[in-house]
Amino acid sequence: MRNTKLVSLEEAIRRSGLKDGMTISFHHHFRGGDKVVNMVVDKLAEMGFKNLHLAASSLSDVHAPLIEHIKNGVITRISTSGLRGTLADAISRGLMEEPVVFRSHGGRGSAIASGELHIDVAFLGASASDELGNACGVPRSENAKSICGSLGYALPDARYASHVVVLTDDLVPYPNLPSGIRAADVESVVVVDSVGDSSKISAGAIRDSKNPRDILLAKSAAKVVINSGLFVDGFSIQTGTGGASLAVVKYIREEMIARGIKASFALGGITAHMVKLHEEGLIGRLIDVQSFDKVAAESIAKDPSHVEVSAVEYASGQHLGSATHALDIVILSALEVDTDFNVNVLVGSDGIIRGAIGGHQDTAADSALSIIVCPLLRGRIPCVVPKVTTLITPGKSVDVVVTEYGVAVNPERPEVRERLVAAGVHVVDIHDLAAKAGSIIGTPDPLPFGDKVVGIVMNRDGSVLDKIYNIK
Amino acid sequence: MRNTKLVSLEEAIRRSGLKDGMTISFHHHFRGGDKVVNMVVDKLAEMGFKNLHLAASSLSDVHAPLIEHIKNGVITRISTSGLRGTLADAISRGLMEEPVVFRSHGGRGSAIASGELHIDVAFLGASASDELGNACGVPRSENAKSICGSLGYALPDARYASHVVVLTDDLVPYPNLPSGIRAADVESVVVVDSVGDSSKISAGAIRDSKNPRDILLAKSAAKVVINSGLFVDGFSIQTGTGGASLAVVKYIREEMIARGIKASFALGGITAHMVKLHEEGLIGRLIDVQSFDKVAAESIAKDPSHVEVSAVEYASGQHLGSATHALDIVILSALEVDTDFNVNVLVGSDGIIRGAIGGHQDTAADSALSIIVCPLLRGRIPCVVPKVTTLITPGKSVDVVVTEYGVAVNPERPEVRERLVAAGVHVVDIHDLAAKAGSIIGTPDPLPFGDKVVGIVMNRDGSVLDKIYNIK
Repeated sequence: MRNTKLVSLEEAIRRSGLKDGMTISFHHHFRGGDKVVNMVVDKLAEMGFKNLHLAASSLSDVHAPLIEHIKNGVITRISTSGLRGTLADAISRGLMEEPVVFRSHGGRGSAIASGELHIDVAFLGASASDELGNACGVPRSENAKSICGSLGYALPDARYASHVVVLTDDLVPYPNLPSGIRAADVESVVVVDSVGDSSKISAGAIRDSKNPRDILLAKSAAKVVINSGLFVDGFSIQTGTGGASLAVVKYIREEMIARGIKASFALGGITAHMVKLHEEGLIGRLIDVQSFDKVAAESIAKDPSHVEVSAVEYASGQHLGSATHALDIVILSALEVDTDFNVNVLVGSDGIIRGAIGGHQDTAADSALSIIVCPLLRGRIPCVVPKVTTLITPGKSVDVVVTEYGVAVNPERPEVRERLVAAGVHVVDIHDLAAKAGSIIGTPDPLPFGDKVVGIVMNRDGSVLDKIYNIK
Repeated sequence: MRNTKLVSLEEAIRRSGLKDGMTISFHHHFRGGDKVVNMVVDKLAEMGFKNLHLAASSLSDVHAPLIEHIKNGVITRISTSGLRGTLADAISRGLMEEPVVFRSHGGRGSAIASGELHIDVAFLGASASDELGNACGVPRSENAKSICGSLGYALPDARYASHVVVLTDDLVPYPNLPSGIRAADVESVVVVDSVGDSSKISAGAIRDSKNPRDILLAKSAAKVVINSGLFVDGFSIQTGTGGASLAVVKYIREEMIARGIKASFALGGITAHMVKLHEEGLIGRLIDVQSFDKVAAESIAKDPSHVEVSAVEYASGQHLGSATHALDIVILSALEVDTDFNVNVLVGSDGIIRGAIGGHQDTAADSALSIIVCPLLRGRIPCVVPKVTTLITPGKSVDVVVTEYGVAVNPERPEVRERLVAAGVHVVDIHDLAAKAGSIIGTPDPLPFGDKVVGIVMNRDGSVLDKIYNIK
């Protein structure tokens, strides 16, 4: 009975029963360094498959080769959290007949768990696997090559897909346990040269920002956190990875030490900064759906209180036990916020898709306090606008918007507004922020959208939030 | 949204949607110390439920109060791995109209995963849980009361049941992670005085046997292991908890040290003896579906290479990734072995149910070498017989039978026989063992079985292996 799972990619595909029209899935834990999507889709094309639905947890620049596979009819549908680069550009201009379906990370988890998004064959890259398919994102031998840390976005696929293929570049002796992907869920194991380039898992600039505007934004956001009424012993927090978000952590840390306050957990994409606070004893648990850098990936490999969770456990709206339900404070970014506090993190001001929903919808909706940190302007592009180009996170989920021109508080949260005013935060009306941006930039021309729907934005509950039209 | 899972037992039952005729489930990690089954069934009776199917991973002496609930029609069907004590006695004599369905641990896991055994509401006792339902069998606070270690037999229920209620006597702050039972799978959390008596999790006598026959059997079994051809660096092993099994570990350990051999993993019910070898570096991983004593429960709480696995991951015959598929050697006990190497571990020589299938079928079938250790006679009761009273593990899965009168090897394993003979093991024909027992005891009278089927023995693949009739 042993060894029978260990096969070539072609044999794994053959035995999976994959047929034209079916749904295949991938995770994006290697981000820009991913090698699995292109490798597998190349092989599927070579084997003559057509009309496949590619359901990735996210896609990025590195997946530009999919353009050819779309043109050739191998891939005719895509579901993802985000799109970037030339693939996003081509899709924005109308490359595909079927619109891309965008879901949040929690929304994807829910849709997979409920069967709304059924995966026929999951192709899951792993840093190490044994021959029975116990697979993980952390190093388990001296030969470990491609390390990504948490495999959180792959875990719903592993649990719910009809057929699971693990790809790894480090086959280790059984039992490769503990592992997030468990052998009982895996049908085939394929050894490949490389599943990903670890050096590219970092999301943008994981460093302390020296940009004075970022520092200003961070100080302001930290002041909001500290005076929100939620900054008490045992609070919980999620932050992003941008320069401002990281700087916020620095200021919050100082205040935690000064007041003797500790956090019960930090959630989401985990960074070196959060690992540092955890190791200092300032954060009890790290709940990690995605490790955003090498330090985080190394921490989850060795620290039992740094815990891998699935996208469902992280952020499903349909599972009350998801961690976002216990989250106090989330700090998020935005491409645009409008005067109804709606947020766009997906479509650029040029109408081109250039982002990802990620956990934005999920954490904003479930957290006790959601804080959007964004500059009023990025160069000549206004970030506070009368109406977002594309609706990603509904304004009712957004509590506070921090800009360098002041802090706007959702009128639905008068108690938060009161606390911030009392603490001397410069609270402004969001309409004034939009007007200020307009007065500097002027009113931009309407974007030259066409009539073809190229993207559907799902809300995390499975309803349609918005449509994205082709840009001419 | 917070706190809404935390309810009374009655409210948890009400919101579960449980209806007459449905299936409820329980785990047996507290063994004779379990307090959950009786507490919940008492409450269900009080609330007026009838005709329920009780699907426990196993039942024991402590569940005698079920007799009244069966008489009153609250429980009309039972599925379990084993039965003991007055409940088993009453059922053996025809208490229930419907036969009890007996499954192996792996067979139960498979049946739950496939939907053959659908659980409507699982009631799962936990040593610690947070208010969202992240629950475990290890201590997580100073108030920890009832510790059982691995929750492996509860994990299929948590994953596949329509509704999951966690009961705990130690509610700890969110996030109680890592935990085997994850919040996303849990609907309600109920705080109770006690879920179990930890002092009773030990399975029989966990101590070095001083019984000379046990020592003889153990030495002989160790000689079989050592000369089986499988005793090489990286081998894997599972043993039981009886005096002879434990003594085997002692002799094997000595030989491992002498030869510089290490085991890759030990599997199954984990005991203090296995923990010791693991901590000495002689065993790489402990794969733990059930912690058989306090030392094992404490080890799994702190040691990441001592891993909790579900019954499916442990021993499912339908999941190629289950650990039994990678198991080299298993040492098992028996109530009876017959001349076709069939084994009975469930029904006593008096026709009364007094045991459990456990992982017997699973490990015997999947391991590379299964060794049954049993005395030829227990008092006036023969253990090697012409035909087992009840068929639990088919002879084709059984390779070697070790008795104090010699070692019998299944004729299907001539290569094993050859190696043992070469090593000077006293190899005998199993018919001679049965004849020897018969010559000492004489031929026992046939058991006074009636016509009523009181138990159905399932094979791990879901087929029926045997029927148990009422005893008069």
